[in-house]
Amino acid sequence: MKIAIIGGGPGGYIAAIRAAQLGAEVSIIEKEHLGGTCLNVGCIPTKVLLHTANLVDTLKKEAKELAIEVTGIEADWSKLQKRKNKITKKLIGGIEGILKSHQIIKYIGQATFSDKNEVTVKCSNGKIEKVAFDYAIIATGSEPNVIPIPGIELQGVITSNEALSLEEVPESLLIIGGGVIGCEFASIYNSFECKVRVIETLPRIVANMDAEITNVLQNKLVKDGIEIHTNTKVKKIEKTADGLEIHTLKGEKSEVFKAEKVLLSIGRKPVTEGLGLDKIGVKTKGSAVAVNDKFQTNVRNIYAIGDCNGGVMLAHVASAQGISAVERIMKKKTSIDFKTTPYCVYTRPELASAGLTEEQAIEQGYHIEKGVFPLFANGKSMITCETEGIVKYISDKATGEILGLHIAGPRATDLIVEGALAIRLEATVEEIITTIHAHPTVGECLHEAAHGVHNNALHLPKIK
Amino acid sequence: MKIAIIGGGPGGYIAAIRAAQLGAEVSIIEKEHLGGTCLNVGCIPTKVLLHTANLVDTLKKEAKELAIEVTGIEADWSKLQKRKNKITKKLIGGIEGILKSHQIIKYIGQATFSDKNEVTVKCSNGKIEKVAFDYAIIATGSEPNVIPIPGIELQGVITSNEALSLEEVPESLLIIGGGVIGCEFASIYNSFECKVRVIETLPRIVANMDAEITNVLQNKLVKDGIEIHTNTKVKKIEKTADGLEIHTLKGEKSEVFKAEKVLLSIGRKPVTEGLGLDKIGVKTKGSAVAVNDKFQTNVRNIYAIGDCNGGVMLAHVASAQGISAVERIMKKKTSIDFKTTPYCVYTRPELASAGLTEEQAIEQGYHIEKGVFPLFANGKSMITCETEGIVKYISDKATGEILGLHIAGPRATDLIVEGALAIRLEATVEEIITTIHAHPTVGECLHEAAHGVHNNALHLPKIK
Repeated sequence: MKIAIIGGGPGGYIAAIRAAQLGAEVSIIEKEHLGGTCLNVGCIPTKVLLHTANLVDTLKKEAKELAIEVTGIEADWSKLQKRKNKITKKLIGGIEGILKSHQIIKYIGQATFSDKNEVTVKCSNGKIEKVAFDYAIIATGSEPNVIPIPGIELQGVITSNEALSLEEVPESLLIIGGGVIGCEFASIYNSFECKVRVIETLPRIVANMDAEITNVLQNKLVKDGIEIHTNTKVKKIEKTADGLEIHTLKGEKSEVFKAEKVLLSIGRKPVTEGLGLDKIGVKTKGSAVAVNDKFQTNVRNIYAIGDCNGGVMLAHVASAQGISAVERIMKKKTSIDFKTTPYCVYTRPELASAGLTEEQAIEQGYHIEKGVFPLFANGKSMITCETEGIVKYISDKATGEILGLHIAGPRATDLIVEGALAIRLEATVEEIITTIHAHPTVGECLHEAAHGVHNNALHLPKIK
Repeated sequence: MKIAIIGGGPGGYIAAIRAAQLGAEVSIIEKEHLGGTCLNVGCIPTKVLLHTANLVDTLKKEAKELAIEVTGIEADWSKLQKRKNKITKKLIGGIEGILKSHQIIKYIGQATFSDKNEVTVKCSNGKIEKVAFDYAIIATGSEPNVIPIPGIELQGVITSNEALSLEEVPESLLIIGGGVIGCEFASIYNSFECKVRVIETLPRIVANMDAEITNVLQNKLVKDGIEIHTNTKVKKIEKTADGLEIHTLKGEKSEVFKAEKVLLSIGRKPVTEGLGLDKIGVKTKGSAVAVNDKFQTNVRNIYAIGDCNGGVMLAHVASAQGISAVERIMKKKTSIDFKTTPYCVYTRPELASAGLTEEQAIEQGYHIEKGVFPLFANGKSMITCETEGIVKYISDKATGEILGLHIAGPRATDLIVEGALAIRLEATVEEIITTIHAHPTVGECLHEAAHGVHNNALHLPKIK
């Protein structure tokens, strides 16, 4: 079986490896850099910056409380940039090695479908290659969205791609869009003493996650000195002698902010140009490749996975879709449960969710119960000075089944494994309660939140 | 229903709260300090010291790699002692408040059974109180073991109780016993520039945990400058002009070490003295209260939970046993699954286990499969400079059922929630594989280890 994979990001390269494991002859065609957005200008580089930013922040604010004497502490932006590039390079090198070990053939260049069983690759070395396939998987990813605000083209208005690699930390940064990407950059630059403002059109930041946990983050970011303007629209951006002026509107009220740089983080859009989809009749939906629930396009032997199909734009979802598509192609039973998808924000506190938010669960007609446990009642969180947070379990009142887990707090992005597995196994609140959780850990809060569903949290005073 | 609980540690106070939630009239009798060993001289204070120790250690070793300039960093032992006491006090205050909110009556003093339905309390304020009960729960905990090594009584030979509160960091410390407690103290004092040696009679440290993860820790501790002598017995301790001399024997070879202090950490033993158990005919087994698998003594209305019954000596197990006993007494369906018990070590890397070790699984007759994933292949661990570690899933070859999860690495003590829940729900390797794990997290390694059971880890080169 010959499989051609177009795109070497976390969707494409994982699909390639899985296909090779299952015995396919695999080619992978990457336009620029293996690793895609995730490794080059997404998950990994942002987390490198966040890790140092969060650590320096912690020490500046909490060293005294932790009985640590520090006479001088400063992160070095340009050294951190080098670290970021080093880690990215190392991880990409790792993927190269893995692909090679599986004898996956790699092409660097632009792929265009010649017909339904062949792509032509215009390689970066100038050669033209023809790659025949039985099945193709489109995994071409996404790029930052740009909206038609007047002034958006001005110098100093950047996207997350540039924000990762600024030569210097600007004095001030205005971020348009308070989603995951906006909040992570707000957090990074704020730690580097840059004056940060976030402008969000919706009533709250990270609006796709449960409101109780995003409120925790919003309060913390504000406490850390970040200005957040919700329900606010950007009308235009203008260049002045000393930077940029951003004209906003909140209800009837206009306000003008000044900033050295403006970061546009209002989501991402699929990238499919140059593929020649129309030529072979693959249907699109807006800028996305249209797929069914098996990630199959209308042309039966061509699949599209990850950001380019316009679904949930997360690296781990792209990987899961890639595995799912390949297993289907290779006639292997495939049963990845997409309801288990975790959503994470790597700020301090971290946010993580799996399953339905309270709002979604109610919308879907569930009679819900919920258990919320505050981290200020948790010993381990007290020890690490991270008591600003909550854990929230949502369950179906009728059956006790876990519908969602939402965490704001230390280690949230790892603790979410419990929620994802609970959803995978249709676990009940009672099953969480009867599982022993280690003391002293942040994980105890998950146990307590489950007890809380029946108003029986152990480390909270009796509810009158 | 009147329930008297003797002992205010994590077994007793949790049993008291749960009993009150279920409508019992509850008295709790504590000899000294609410919170027991756990809060006063165990879990919580050690973790306070470890948190600061690990953080300072990280910065001293890794600041440069993390692009952080630190001109002077030192932890202040005496300030850290104050922090430890402050946190302990705050948590104990919290428990006081919760007990009060449930109208649980508290006595501070020594309890002695008058008969099978009454205890006499010799209160610390001099009063004598009689407490009648329908059911009693003994939760009197444990104390450090002391073995008859010649010289054990010398000044400078201490237990974990004293090691938590030394006025000054000694120049050198020899630790007898390389179990959890020994390793945590080795880690703390080593971070404070004390010369630390660990003497262990067994062939490896933390011998109750899976060898592959304890090897990771052993190598790391040695790399950090701690001397570890396994297969070594202490024959005697002698006082000299400049400290203590510890005479050891490894096979035929004797060796003498010098140390300012010797920490004896060779396990703990149940505390039951003064209870008058023989008077009312409660059977004991060595120094422990003998119980059946329902934590019930031979006197049917008297239970014994936690360390004092000589079982698994962990705070969260004591709490779970307390809840289990109380629910049985109050005729509530109780189904805590003790197979889910997590074991944790809070060093850097952290260790955590749930379920069977490889050795135990084989001993119990399973044909096992295992998947091991090294953290050096994980992006998030690379970002946090914590690539020394592994994740290991053990499963039953016949059914795919998860038998054990073992982790050495960052956040291990929280990530273990996945293993505990998997065991609770009799999950299979396939069910872990088909659960989406977030990227980039340490939790991805759990997913990879599950894939690894079938030699299908995605981020490792193909196994030839």
